[in-house]
Amino acid sequence: MPVVFSFVMNVWEVIMARKSAVAPVILLGLGKVGRALVNLVIAGRDQLEERRGIMIRLLGVADSTGAFVNPDGLTDPELGYILSSKSEGGTISELPGSLSLGEITAVLRPGTIVVDATASETTSPMLIAALANGCGVVLANKRPLVLPWEEAKVFYTHPCAGYEATVGAGLPVISTLRALLDTGDRITAIDGLVSGTLGYLLSEVEDGTPYSVALSRAHASGYTEPDPRDDLSGMDVARKGVILARTAGWPLELDDLPVTPLYPPELAALPVQEFMRAAARLDEEYARKAAQARSEGKALRYLVRVSPTGGEVGLTAVDQGSALARLHGAENAVVIKSEFYREIPLSVCGPGAGPRVTASGVLKDITEIAIELRKEKG
Amino acid sequence: MPVVFSFVMNVWEVIMARKSAVAPVILLGLGKVGRALVNLVIAGRDQLEERRGIMIRLLGVADSTGAFVNPDGLTDPELGYILSSKSEGGTISELPGSLSLGEITAVLRPGTIVVDATASETTSPMLIAALANGCGVVLANKRPLVLPWEEAKVFYTHPCAGYEATVGAGLPVISTLRALLDTGDRITAIDGLVSGTLGYLLSEVEDGTPYSVALSRAHASGYTEPDPRDDLSGMDVARKGVILARTAGWPLELDDLPVTPLYPPELAALPVQEFMRAAARLDEEYARKAAQARSEGKALRYLVRVSPTGGEVGLTAVDQGSALARLHGAENAVVIKSEFYREIPLSVCGPGAGPRVTASGVLKDITEIAIELRKEKG
Repeated sequence: MPVVFSFVMNVWEVIMARKSAVAPVILLGLGKVGRALVNLVIAGRDQLEERRGIMIRLLGVADSTGAFVNPDGLTDPELGYILSSKSEGGTISELPGSLSLGEITAVLRPGTIVVDATASETTSPMLIAALANGCGVVLANKRPLVLPWEEAKVFYTHPCAGYEATVGAGLPVISTLRALLDTGDRITAIDGLVSGTLGYLLSEVEDGTPYSVALSRAHASGYTEPDPRDDLSGMDVARKGVILARTAGWPLELDDLPVTPLYPPELAALPVQEFMRAAARLDEEYARKAAQARSEGKALRYLVRVSPTGGEVGLTAVDQGSALARLHGAENAVVIKSEFYREIPLSVCGPGAGPRVTASGVLKDITEIAIELRKEKG
Repeated sequence: MPVVFSFVMNVWEVIMARKSAVAPVILLGLGKVGRALVNLVIAGRDQLEERRGIMIRLLGVADSTGAFVNPDGLTDPELGYILSSKSEGGTISELPGSLSLGEITAVLRPGTIVVDATASETTSPMLIAALANGCGVVLANKRPLVLPWEEAKVFYTHPCAGYEATVGAGLPVISTLRALLDTGDRITAIDGLVSGTLGYLLSEVEDGTPYSVALSRAHASGYTEPDPRDDLSGMDVARKGVILARTAGWPLELDDLPVTPLYPPELAALPVQEFMRAAARLDEEYARKAAQARSEGKALRYLVRVSPTGGEVGLTAVDQGSALARLHGAENAVVIKSEFYREIPLSVCGPGAGPRVTASGVLKDITEIAIELRKEKG
């Protein structure tokens, strides 16, 4: 196309003039994901600056006991010192130079990005206040997102809030749903296999391992919560279902998703060790269910399925030919049907758990929000 | 976490103060994708403004014969009039009020986003000049992206250039690769089934349809190029392979990807109709290949595979258990292995062709670049 420019060509001038913007970040929570994020930031800082023009500066980090703060940005030695203490089971309050938790707000300014990598029920008011004051918010913590819709709404609608890591860890699940809606699509249904732990468990049962044996292995390897019923209850899957539904534009509540747990009510009140022993009673039932599914050409999966009118969480026999049947082990998948993807759905598959890929989802959000917040280059 | 804010809380004030930013767009090419984009913009404009604060304004549209330009934005009736003429096979130059093609540059200003939805070989200098002058560039056209690396480099590295729609149409393929690299990951290999046409053809052969019959059907339905050898040659798949590789950080050239076409060299020079008849000679060979793959527990797929050192394009027998074997019909899939996704890869699957999903990929890029370009709210 022979189109001629009427203004002067100076190919690299504009590119070279782009200065990097500082993205000040405060991190709440120094569990596995929080620590992986700090490591990712240290290792990937230069790459991110070169690629996206964003310079991440960690101004403060906090666990539930205290905070470390440096208005100029915590240095790598400071961060290394904090991380190694935490990895060895220490708390921030034990470290010389730490401040009380409240002091972390001293470095909050409009433009700061607050990352919630806790599992706390109580961070929500602080995060909402941060958004209201021109900060960005990134959630790895699902709990604020499943509060009643009127309270949680701001996290789904504010342009400076992100929560990619809450479903599928680093897989592009939330960003894909958002992009579909941004481009005028209408989502009609989402099926998700979003628990690596339960995926692993059912894969083992499918391969002939007794339920209780597979469960003990997962428990011993640290793949389950300390009380494995926290996974088996399906509540974490239901939370992810609510997050998927709300992202798709359906303001469902947790109560709208009936959940069938992977253990019967009579085992709910037992102490953990007794529960683990009692689980052997379930071996036959699950082996039978797996055999039945196989005889029908199907595979047993623990799924969340949501649509505009509600959803459900539980064991489902899916066709062997489907994307969900093909998964094994801890692999996650989210299958999206929409107006654009009506006959053949859009699906995203891969490992949906692990500190590093989860931290990578958090870092992706930080980058997008830093670009959204950037008004002038510093 | 009992953190108290030291500055005043005013939840909605900041949100409400966010004004929408106008994103002026110029569209080159009014084929199926260009027209689908105009329709998406008209239908989804309000949704995009509400969700992302971006108001798309089409200042000009052009085909290879001429342009329509309105510095205040083309009105919906103007756009409807142009689209309906184009759908009926007309050209812009025939329409009263059209300008010569060159006139479209009259409305180009820094901040304008130029969309290349042509299949032209010659738009590259104009696009590079646009980037150099503070414009954004969105490519649905693969050709500028497979020019020698030194020329094409700017499209891969400039923060205001996007090309999501060139591989997998609306599927989040490019954005996923970019996000992995942004967050410090290192890609190690990419396998792609990125031709819906060849996917359909091989699915049919797998199901027992003779190669020549499946080809005739695809040709008659308009799924192939007018000369189906343009698909069967594998060159379009190779172009997508180069785009994937370069996005992953490997500056490969087209020559680095040996391509095995889906027809033998002796049929290369025949006229189209003769080639279609001669294709029956290949039926037995492809039926045999499919049977052989099946007997080994595999499925025949036409794949591009790239890694840091090179790649190849051709027919491959993949394990029945793999993500690529499960696909049927026109479905696309891209499977990414990286440092973060080492044992279980990250895969994105779904329809990878069609005007609407392709236009949706273009619109996603426009939105991201508009946010990148936005410095002050209008």
